[in-house]
Amino acid sequence: MRFLGLILTILLVGPIWSQTDDKEQLKAIYNAELTQAESYTWLNYLSNQIGGRLTGSVQAEQAVEYTKQKLDSLGLDRVWLQPVIVPKWVRGVPEFAFIESKPGITNNVPICALGGSIATPTGGIKANVIEVNGIEELEKLGRGKIEGKIVFYNKPMDPSLINTFEAYSSCVNQRYSGAKEASKYGAVAIIVRSMNLRLDDYPHAGGMSYGDISLEDRIPAAAISTNGAELLSTTLKLNPEIKFYFKQNCRQLQDVKSYNVIGEIKGSVHPDEIILVGGHLDSWDLGDGAHDDGAGCVQSMEVLRLLKLTGYVPKRTIRVVLFMNEENGLKGAKTYAEIALSKNENHVFALESDAGGFTPRGFSFDCSETDFAKILRWKSLFEPYYVHLFEQGGSGADIGPLKNDQIVLAGLRPDSQRYFDHHHTEIDTFKHVNKRELELGAATMASLIYLIDKYGTASENTGADK
Amino acid sequence: MRFLGLILTILLVGPIWSQTDDKEQLKAIYNAELTQAESYTWLNYLSNQIGGRLTGSVQAEQAVEYTKQKLDSLGLDRVWLQPVIVPKWVRGVPEFAFIESKPGITNNVPICALGGSIATPTGGIKANVIEVNGIEELEKLGRGKIEGKIVFYNKPMDPSLINTFEAYSSCVNQRYSGAKEASKYGAVAIIVRSMNLRLDDYPHAGGMSYGDISLEDRIPAAAISTNGAELLSTTLKLNPEIKFYFKQNCRQLQDVKSYNVIGEIKGSVHPDEIILVGGHLDSWDLGDGAHDDGAGCVQSMEVLRLLKLTGYVPKRTIRVVLFMNEENGLKGAKTYAEIALSKNENHVFALESDAGGFTPRGFSFDCSETDFAKILRWKSLFEPYYVHLFEQGGSGADIGPLKNDQIVLAGLRPDSQRYFDHHHTEIDTFKHVNKRELELGAATMASLIYLIDKYGTASENTGADK
Repeated sequence: MRFLGLILTILLVGPIWSQTDDKEQLKAIYNAELTQAESYTWLNYLSNQIGGRLTGSVQAEQAVEYTKQKLDSLGLDRVWLQPVIVPKWVRGVPEFAFIESKPGITNNVPICALGGSIATPTGGIKANVIEVNGIEELEKLGRGKIEGKIVFYNKPMDPSLINTFEAYSSCVNQRYSGAKEASKYGAVAIIVRSMNLRLDDYPHAGGMSYGDISLEDRIPAAAISTNGAELLSTTLKLNPEIKFYFKQNCRQLQDVKSYNVIGEIKGSVHPDEIILVGGHLDSWDLGDGAHDDGAGCVQSMEVLRLLKLTGYVPKRTIRVVLFMNEENGLKGAKTYAEIALSKNENHVFALESDAGGFTPRGFSFDCSETDFAKILRWKSLFEPYYVHLFEQGGSGADIGPLKNDQIVLAGLRPDSQRYFDHHHTEIDTFKHVNKRELELGAATMASLIYLIDKYGTASENTGADK
Repeated sequence: MRFLGLILTILLVGPIWSQTDDKEQLKAIYNAELTQAESYTWLNYLSNQIGGRLTGSVQAEQAVEYTKQKLDSLGLDRVWLQPVIVPKWVRGVPEFAFIESKPGITNNVPICALGGSIATPTGGIKANVIEVNGIEELEKLGRGKIEGKIVFYNKPMDPSLINTFEAYSSCVNQRYSGAKEASKYGAVAIIVRSMNLRLDDYPHAGGMSYGDISLEDRIPAAAISTNGAELLSTTLKLNPEIKFYFKQNCRQLQDVKSYNVIGEIKGSVHPDEIILVGGHLDSWDLGDGAHDDGAGCVQSMEVLRLLKLTGYVPKRTIRVVLFMNEENGLKGAKTYAEIALSKNENHVFALESDAGGFTPRGFSFDCSETDFAKILRWKSLFEPYYVHLFEQGGSGADIGPLKNDQIVLAGLRPDSQRYFDHHHTEIDTFKHVNKRELELGAATMASLIYLIDKYGTASENTGADK
């Protein structure tokens, strides 16, 4: 039994695991990143020289050009642009909103249009408000209490959840589907409490969808800051007859051509096995997208640079992909996956960083039990770097379309406590990214990519050294 | 053998460990803190209504008064002030410095006097500069190259160390002992590179000591921002004959009376066994001391509040101590330990939070192997809260004087990446503390205090339930 177990272990986990070499390689990676990084410099340029990179914008195209040029400078085997047709939504002039307690008595509140929303009529919308604690409450209220009103979705993120992304997941459907659902009951518009755990004055942008509802049934959708939401809720409690006014002139234009930015180091042993690392190049327009997801882009670029800098020669092809249009359409990710499928490309592993440039805590893996067991054996290698979290779960939106039975998908998991202070707001800016936290993330990603390349995954689509 | 092992285990670790109860209690503690905290509100007051709390200042006394009043409101069994005689050093008017490349060609650079330093002469000091990479280089240079000059300590913190406190430890002797050592070689003053991993314009204050050198041999000591240090170093490389000028009029006044602020919940079973939790109430004067150590104070106060809020009745006495004068004398800590010894008080455990209000990563324990083994058994209880780090090492400066063979000392270990961006500077301010990160720290501390109280330590000075 024991002997058989050993044989099985060797079969499953590959060549004898040289922990000392791996320790040294990880140390070399972290050292190189903490002392000779480019990631922070690149992020500074993306954030402060280019700025917010809304899909279809001039800035998004500048970011394509800049990152391609930087990848070109890294001495990779191949760098290219992959054309993608993307939606182009524009915000227009700044939005304006107020609560009208009585005719003539108004309080301005900060709002922003949700991405994909239609404009209000030129003169704005003014209507009574019905507050709900999530989409589920609409049905109970029924058309009688909703028709002609603005639905105010005010379900807050749950502060007791330690992982703030769980709190986000449990109420973001208000933002994404709130307009579609409310329009079914005759609402004239919706206002959504910003996806933010703290009370402040920043409205949070984010994508929404009308699904398949007809053009004439579509209603304008905006987010309100958490302080604004508290004020609106309190005012409604005092007098349910108050009115809310807002005006936005965002528009959906014709689709345009954009690009995914791709670079790779060809594998020296298994060139047809592809290990992907990436983030998304587009961002919302209110801030400069430093955390979401400039950080993930520069970290992914740095992974390839670090492997070269430390003299590591990958056995498999290591490919960085900077996806376009994650925020409002996912067209870059879908196009990439379609092309990969049509070319019969063999992606064995994909890692995305899209949760902010904060101190890395670990990874989440979407893979088979066998693969997870194999990966868990490397966990102790990361502990000297205070990276402890290896869990099964989701990965990243851009690599999701690559999912199949064999591929191992992974997401970097940075500390999540501050993320929703900045997410999709005017304060998602470079100055809120700490250089060392960003760099530790890049080194942590490069370390995992190195281990995956060296030992392969446990799944059937990997090469001879499994 | 096995049976004996079991018996031994029971003897060592106490009553059957009811992990389910403990899980529930930790969940109750974290929930209460993340939804009903006072810590952030208290810190706001300490930071924004009171401000920097330099020992001996009016603000330090206001902080004594405020925290005592808040402890009084918590319904503890006893709250009191413990008198402490403390040093009083004052900064005086803002410091001023420049690099003089040629007579009349000057560049101003940001400096601040180090705590405990003497003033320059009224007209300032201007002299040639000798740069050294740490105290060790003084001997090699000898009096010939040092006499009459300003010694410029420019050893940087090592960015490749993951734990930034290690980087701090390895060069902070330049700041603490630099003046004393340089004066032995006839230096007229010292300038120290700020203890900061990044390049910016903030000089970092901090304590220094002249040791036993005579009054007439004492020389002024100041810190220069990291950008200033880089400029000075570059300028010196171009021309070693440049001069540096600075002026400061800080003074050491007569000692004054201040206080440690103390509150406790009397133990229901072992009232004579004391579990201490604390931080230090004093801070440097440039910022408002929100991270160092307002955070540790409010977290420690919150520990007692959380135990009461969750209905837990401690078996042992749980005492919060807000120490005075950690930054430049440690008089609060020394006085507290002397009085505890004179009263024959039995401290079984002490926990300090003095590493910033950042996301808690775990604890460092200064204790016996037996105690550490016992504590390690609780580690998995903390993992749902992303608290993974249980290591042996130091604890905290204020609880250090309590050290003996039996006591377990512990330090909260928050994420350390951002700490030295703020430490002892004008940007150690409230707005750089994230509410949730602060709260998670408080809940993590309360959870450990709960477990220590419930199960005791393994050492001989604990009661019947060991």
